[in-house]
Amino acid sequence: MTPIRNNQSDGDAVLDAVRDCVLAVGVRRTTLTDVARRAGVSRMTLYRRWPDVRSLVGDLMTREWVDVAAGAIPEHRPDTTARERLVEGLVAGVGSFRAHPLFRKIVDVDPELLLTYVLDRRGASQNALLELLADGLKEGHADGSVRTGHLERQARSLLLIVQSFTLSLRTMTDEDDADLSSAAFLTELRDILERTLTP
Amino acid sequence: MTPIRNNQSDGDAVLDAVRDCVLAVGVRRTTLTDVARRAGVSRMTLYRRWPDVRSLVGDLMTREWVDVAAGAIPEHRPDTTARERLVEGLVAGVGSFRAHPLFRKIVDVDPELLLTYVLDRRGASQNALLELLADGLKEGHADGSVRTGHLERQARSLLLIVQSFTLSLRTMTDEDDADLSSAAFLTELRDILERTLTP
Repeated sequence: MTPIRNNQSDGDAVLDAVRDCVLAVGVRRTTLTDVARRAGVSRMTLYRRWPDVRSLVGDLMTREWVDVAAGAIPEHRPDTTARERLVEGLVAGVGSFRAHPLFRKIVDVDPELLLTYVLDRRGASQNALLELLADGLKEGHADGSVRTGHLERQARSLLLIVQSFTLSLRTMTDEDDADLSSAAFLTELRDILERTLTP
Repeated sequence: MTPIRNNQSDGDAVLDAVRDCVLAVGVRRTTLTDVARRAGVSRMTLYRRWPDVRSLVGDLMTREWVDVAAGAIPEHRPDTTARERLVEGLVAGVGSFRAHPLFRKIVDVDPELLLTYVLDRRGASQNALLELLADGLKEGHADGSVRTGHLERQARSLLLIVQSFTLSLRTMTDEDDADLSSAAFLTELRDILERTLTP
């Protein structure tokens, strides 16, 4: 362990430890003691910033999902429109989410944790994703490649669509049938998003 | 009670009894004994057709949701296209589902029952809804108002979209803000569906 760390890397080391714990045993069976041990910090250090496992997992999710989303957004290139980048980023993002080990672990082991964010209220991760979406939409309004509309409502509607493809695609695919494979549905999603956003 | 009934109305009386029980106490606290008593049939009669509460509730859901969906589809009129009817039906359907007492009860009291059908596999109700959607799409392919595409994939993609608006709209609305009200989002949904289906 490095003896001196700044807050950022301290936080990152803790979130790395939470991630390892969740991947090993799921969210419900992860304890603050496990996390503290794995991160090499005292329980008091953890408690000061995170009162419980739920808040730790919340921060981990936000970090991971924003990383996934940011990684899915293509680089700005002068020969692409904002809409092209947004659609490409959203489709790639759905694919990356579905393949993400942490996402799969939660779906398999602690799926009930997702219910709140599907039925009741947005979590911090969803709000962070909405900000990224709003940025993309704003660029598209500016370069004329995205139909004008209420920015926040457009962002939230897009999130409803891609969230459903991320969470529920498995209920609709039949991987033995090329027309009903995940890849075919992601092409359909691309078409839906493209049509939804075109002015 | 009428002394002689055919199977259909017998089944309906039982499903009515399940509905009343679920509306009163939720799914988990409903028992076959309650249902039998309320329907005025013996427990043996119930067992013969439904081995457990889950199968009873499954049949009730299928009946209710197909009723909601069928009620939302506008009548065939010569001056409308199949796409117009489909889009109008889907938007009205999302509104009716969200207002349905049984749907609200499950979301409020037994939300974990929805998880399987969001994450893992389709239920009988979803398959029944997909058939209705496929019928509408087929008409649209025939009259040229819906873009051609793989019928089943189109139906399932539409279900992913409207399911998300039905289940998760509450997480995205802000009823105090006209731009972010349910009504505004349903207008957005209409736009998305219209654009998605136009040839």
